[in-house]
Amino acid sequence: MNNYKVDEWKIIEETFEPQRVKGSESIFSIGNGMMGQRANFEEDYSGEMLRGSYIAGVYYPDKTRVGWWKNGYPEYFAKVLNSANFIGIRVKVNGEPIDLSQNKVVSFSRILDMQHGLLQRSFVVELRNGGKIEIVAERFMSMARPEIAAISYSVCALDCDSIVAVEGYVDGDVVNEDSNYNEKFWDEVAKSATSRGGYLVMKTKKLDFNVCWNMSLEYSIDGAEMPAKAISIEREKYVSNSVEFNLKKNQTLTVNKYVAVTSTLNHPFENLVSKSDEILSKAALDSYAVLKNEHINKWLDKWQHADIVIEGDAEAQQGIRFNIFQLFQTYTGEDERLNIGPKGFTGEKYGGSTYWDTEAYCLPFYMSTAGEHVARQLLIYRYRQLDKAIENAAKLGFTDGAALFPMVTMNGEECHNEWEITFEEIHRNGAIAYAIKRYIDYTGDKGYLTEYGLEVLVGISRFWAQRITWSDERQKYVMLGVTGPNEYENNVNNNWYTNYLAVWTLKYTAEAISYVNNTDASTWAAIKGRISFKEDAELAKWADIVAKMHFPYNEKLGVIMQQDGFMDKEQILVKDLDPSQRPLNQKWSWDRILRSVFIKQADVLQGVYFFENDFDLETIRKNFDFYEQRTVHESSLSPCVHSILACKIGDMERAKTMYLRTARLDLDDYNKEVNEGLHITSMAGSWMSVVEGFGGLRIKNDTLYFNPFIPDNWKSLAFKVIFRGRTIKAKFEGGKTILTNESEQPLSVMVKDATICIPANSTIGV
Amino acid sequence: MNNYKVDEWKIIEETFEPQRVKGSESIFSIGNGMMGQRANFEEDYSGEMLRGSYIAGVYYPDKTRVGWWKNGYPEYFAKVLNSANFIGIRVKVNGEPIDLSQNKVVSFSRILDMQHGLLQRSFVVELRNGGKIEIVAERFMSMARPEIAAISYSVCALDCDSIVAVEGYVDGDVVNEDSNYNEKFWDEVAKSATSRGGYLVMKTKKLDFNVCWNMSLEYSIDGAEMPAKAISIEREKYVSNSVEFNLKKNQTLTVNKYVAVTSTLNHPFENLVSKSDEILSKAALDSYAVLKNEHINKWLDKWQHADIVIEGDAEAQQGIRFNIFQLFQTYTGEDERLNIGPKGFTGEKYGGSTYWDTEAYCLPFYMSTAGEHVARQLLIYRYRQLDKAIENAAKLGFTDGAALFPMVTMNGEECHNEWEITFEEIHRNGAIAYAIKRYIDYTGDKGYLTEYGLEVLVGISRFWAQRITWSDERQKYVMLGVTGPNEYENNVNNNWYTNYLAVWTLKYTAEAISYVNNTDASTWAAIKGRISFKEDAELAKWADIVAKMHFPYNEKLGVIMQQDGFMDKEQILVKDLDPSQRPLNQKWSWDRILRSVFIKQADVLQGVYFFENDFDLETIRKNFDFYEQRTVHESSLSPCVHSILACKIGDMERAKTMYLRTARLDLDDYNKEVNEGLHITSMAGSWMSVVEGFGGLRIKNDTLYFNPFIPDNWKSLAFKVIFRGRTIKAKFEGGKTILTNESEQPLSVMVKDATICIPANSTIGV
Repeated sequence: MNNYKVDEWKIIEETFEPQRVKGSESIFSIGNGMMGQRANFEEDYSGEMLRGSYIAGVYYPDKTRVGWWKNGYPEYFAKVLNSANFIGIRVKVNGEPIDLSQNKVVSFSRILDMQHGLLQRSFVVELRNGGKIEIVAERFMSMARPEIAAISYSVCALDCDSIVAVEGYVDGDVVNEDSNYNEKFWDEVAKSATSRGGYLVMKTKKLDFNVCWNMSLEYSIDGAEMPAKAISIEREKYVSNSVEFNLKKNQTLTVNKYVAVTSTLNHPFENLVSKSDEILSKAALDSYAVLKNEHINKWLDKWQHADIVIEGDAEAQQGIRFNIFQLFQTYTGEDERLNIGPKGFTGEKYGGSTYWDTEAYCLPFYMSTAGEHVARQLLIYRYRQLDKAIENAAKLGFTDGAALFPMVTMNGEECHNEWEITFEEIHRNGAIAYAIKRYIDYTGDKGYLTEYGLEVLVGISRFWAQRITWSDERQKYVMLGVTGPNEYENNVNNNWYTNYLAVWTLKYTAEAISYVNNTDASTWAAIKGRISFKEDAELAKWADIVAKMHFPYNEKLGVIMQQDGFMDKEQILVKDLDPSQRPLNQKWSWDRILRSVFIKQADVLQGVYFFENDFDLETIRKNFDFYEQRTVHESSLSPCVHSILACKIGDMERAKTMYLRTARLDLDDYNKEVNEGLHITSMAGSWMSVVEGFGGLRIKNDTLYFNPFIPDNWKSLAFKVIFRGRTIKAKFEGGKTILTNESEQPLSVMVKDATICIPANSTIGV
Repeated sequence: MNNYKVDEWKIIEETFEPQRVKGSESIFSIGNGMMGQRANFEEDYSGEMLRGSYIAGVYYPDKTRVGWWKNGYPEYFAKVLNSANFIGIRVKVNGEPIDLSQNKVVSFSRILDMQHGLLQRSFVVELRNGGKIEIVAERFMSMARPEIAAISYSVCALDCDSIVAVEGYVDGDVVNEDSNYNEKFWDEVAKSATSRGGYLVMKTKKLDFNVCWNMSLEYSIDGAEMPAKAISIEREKYVSNSVEFNLKKNQTLTVNKYVAVTSTLNHPFENLVSKSDEILSKAALDSYAVLKNEHINKWLDKWQHADIVIEGDAEAQQGIRFNIFQLFQTYTGEDERLNIGPKGFTGEKYGGSTYWDTEAYCLPFYMSTAGEHVARQLLIYRYRQLDKAIENAAKLGFTDGAALFPMVTMNGEECHNEWEITFEEIHRNGAIAYAIKRYIDYTGDKGYLTEYGLEVLVGISRFWAQRITWSDERQKYVMLGVTGPNEYENNVNNNWYTNYLAVWTLKYTAEAISYVNNTDASTWAAIKGRISFKEDAELAKWADIVAKMHFPYNEKLGVIMQQDGFMDKEQILVKDLDPSQRPLNQKWSWDRILRSVFIKQADVLQGVYFFENDFDLETIRKNFDFYEQRTVHESSLSPCVHSILACKIGDMERAKTMYLRTARLDLDDYNKEVNEGLHITSMAGSWMSVVEGFGGLRIKNDTLYFNPFIPDNWKSLAFKVIFRGRTIKAKFEGGKTILTNESEQPLSVMVKDATICIPANSTIGV
């Protein structure tokens, strides 16, 4: 099943297969949080590919496209913008283009060196005249200088003297694959090509993002610098330098290409070019080797804090490192304006926007590995969009400060335009509330409530209180017309997960109000005034809903029901499905999927995972057994939750299967869609499945708690978490838990039932 | 509320109001079944308008547009094609264009003369120099020569001698307002402008429909023919003749414009121009007066057969005549390839395609007024598309000859692309089966089953048998994930109407099999072989479903439930709705509409209407009372059914209110959307509400039955129906029923409980 060689630190591709190009472009993607790109080739490639290069925070409000307009739909769908191809190095040898789609490929190898953050490629092609050419290329987006990318690209004629022409370029004439009306989104602003480089400034047709790509090129033969006389070329949205060398047999021409990418997100427009000139000359002066070294050190430092080491299972090891690597490439936590798009910089589907994935999946990873301030920043991102969430709810008919956070957003405005998602997949609102609890439980930072959290909670609670209606017939509150996390069901009544999360939000908000009122009455009074909170009436209404909410449950089975009427479906199990019919979303009509019992992703189990303390082990086991048998995991967000619950109930077999499915989802392309990009946000779920699943990490009464459950074939598992100012390393090996406190403060932790105090800078084994 | 003057035979507009232009363009539409157009002005109009001219059967498979693709969606959406503007006569007086949007309007009048099929307009404008110009225009699409349109257009300078320039043209550079990607759908093929006319041949970019528009122009001043020297102009997709006259004060220039429209639907490509030349010269030679007279006679003849006369209520009278007039303009029943689009030739929304409206609403009207052969032809239209319906079902995962007829189609292929409609609004399949029963009940033509009907019924029954699934939980059959006629609910379980119709289809098909087998065993054997019918197994399965189907019902209320869980909704009534919130579909978010109790159109009541004999009067009354209070009638197809049922239960007040709502829906613009076009198919519903509602017409055991129930303020009601070869006129006046048999054969009919034999060519009063 593996498309790539299993290696603990590298992703390795050893053959060239045209049908795998788009998938590998996703897998080998590189980025540095500020920009990122698919692993397109530097030289021309005329085969099927998806050229993609993206800049964090630079997006486009593309005119929306719907079949039939419905009231409440947003006017635009914001998408991460495919931007200039700046890696381009066109190569011709004796007039024949190097193009893996056209040349005879003799050998090919591509490596993603995750430890050092490098994309390396080498290949030999045979040209029409029989001559063989070897190309060796390496590139990275600098983690040390986030506006710098560097490429080292070498050409060697193995058989005979050759004329090698190279043209390094920046090409801004790009189009988003997912452009709704095949429109291009960029206009040229300025450009200039010199004999050793050139820049291009482009501007987005809407929102006025300006970006400058500035390149500098240097040439050497067998290490000796060549003061080449390049021809500078300027065309519409295009600058390049073209140069020819007479290469002796076995001589190697190396082109170093440095690119600075500056944008008006970070610089005033008038400085864009000068700033890029400045950092570009500095980079070129420092040299490729220095840039590379700095970059590697940054990566080594990240690994130092965030690595997970699994001994004894190279597949499991490779999977988790791939996930951590891609997460840090996508979002470093250093820019509060940014968030984490489901596909990061590896594809266009889902538009690079913010989804509930951030709160439900990504928050714990960044909180534990990058630090509490990053988690806080992710929460504040939503706080800043509260007004837009209130406007969004108002558009749907809600009043009095009810807030519905968008399903998909760049700036707080809703982008998605399927009614069953946009209007109905409202559990996302609950996940945003739950993230506040999770953050406070982990960090102990209850002050966050007073400062930011409470207003968000009240807005969400007000939404629930209006969205939930009273059924005279049942004498219960109900929530009609929703879509749960399982998107293979739409417009259902009383999705248990949504109902549960809503009721929990109401309770938690009431507690939070009481906490803020008790600790800082004047702030509460100020908030109350600002949001016109009718304390008695609103709290009474919430309490009534909490007391009288309907939760679907099947007495006979003793199992929570995903929604009303779930048992009316034909109860076929996943094991009975013909494998040729999977993934269902590619093989079945939507109609058939909706009517079937099959579940796309954890739904009831997502709730059981969030609120595990509310259920005894037997209940968890029953529900897990029931739903796992019906879940096809065609959402990337599903297997991690199942893996954690499987650990919880001691089902090692399924825990491991589900872990591999989440950690190696893209590497092994379980859902046959890796060509579209990677599943970045679910990679944080893989991290959770190791740390919370196998490590059994929880926070119990402000205390770090471990309940390890390690697969038999794993010699050991080790990871670190940052917890309340301490870095704690946990290693599980041979039934023992070895905890190292890498900080200057002692910490009490629990391992199963035992409470242990680990002194500063010490290791204790249990 | 009336926008137009109430008149029994005319629609009259007496003022010019720019904001009403688009609505009036719809209302005053004219057509002749072969072509039709909105009532655009001949002269230029630079204000907001929707120019639209359509040719029956000429459509375009526009590339579909969806927000998010779902498996099973069709690749294209076929739309009726906006085609060349051939009415155009550009007028300039002393260099100033006549343009109601720019000129000062002194007076304006527009009349749709329904009795004679004429669109007439006259207006006076004051130009910048103070001179007043009077325009008098009349046009029609000939009912006698369906490829001919004729316009008489007069200009008179009321105040002073003037130079009048007129340019009669054909302009093929048109675009569909609903083009998904703003593409134009026509290419020019040929053109030629002469000094007295010109032609333009255009071809659709897909499907290769070729159409020739050929015009001939004649000019006269105060009745004296003017041998004008026109300049002929040819541009891309455009031909015209431009000519100037020096008009003395009070002289009238009249331009007669004759247009022949020929298409490859009816002629070989190579004859298009010569054929149009031929019929055009004949028309011009015959003269405008002769053409007009022929046309009027055709209309008088239609009215002779199809008129409904309501004495004592001019609004009611005008409404029904408007409906009948528009129905005959849209579809005459003479071309078996055609069908009835929901908006006919009056707008672009709904694409001019075939919907279930044809079977559920239009069939009875055409059957009773145009004849049984037309109804048969409409049924055969679907029979010819059975293979495509089977393919369509297969695309969704159904097997073994199950047929799902499309929601929207031009040629049998599905066009619609909302999953909740395309995949789920499957009750349409039942309506197609029910139309067969209705046709046979009315005509007695049971042979239709053997010839065509049975295969359609089996295909539909096979679909139901697979679409319905067994619920272990309920120990009943259920039908999950459907949308009923009430499209303000999507993806519900066990829509009662759909369940009922499905079970009825299974029973009726079994009976039909038995009938064909008993009357013509060899044909049944042949059909059985052809469709691989597993008689025992399939019939047994159907019988099991019939015996064990679940039908939602509320015991406490004694009311049928529209779907599972209907009573969980907040039970607010229409009377409690703030009028400013209506129509809901323009004021509320889709989300709010879906969750609300409000019903777009008859759903349970559609079933009660179809199967009224299955329910006692008390049940009908209870269900009517329950659902009428919750129905907002925002589908045009709703009030007619409510009106008929209100008659049935003797609720005259509601019957009349609902009748006016259906018959005057567009005239009074109840749903605030007449600017988009007229609701043609629901106009047949208005006919039903008169004939079946007030007239109480039914077929009971092969006998025509009347049960009249006439509003107090109606002095009399009279209509004719064609029934089994006889034309029967029924007049209801002063509590009496007067029946005239206008045929050569006697006929027994029932009036309430009495059976009466009316001899040939006789009248009997009861």
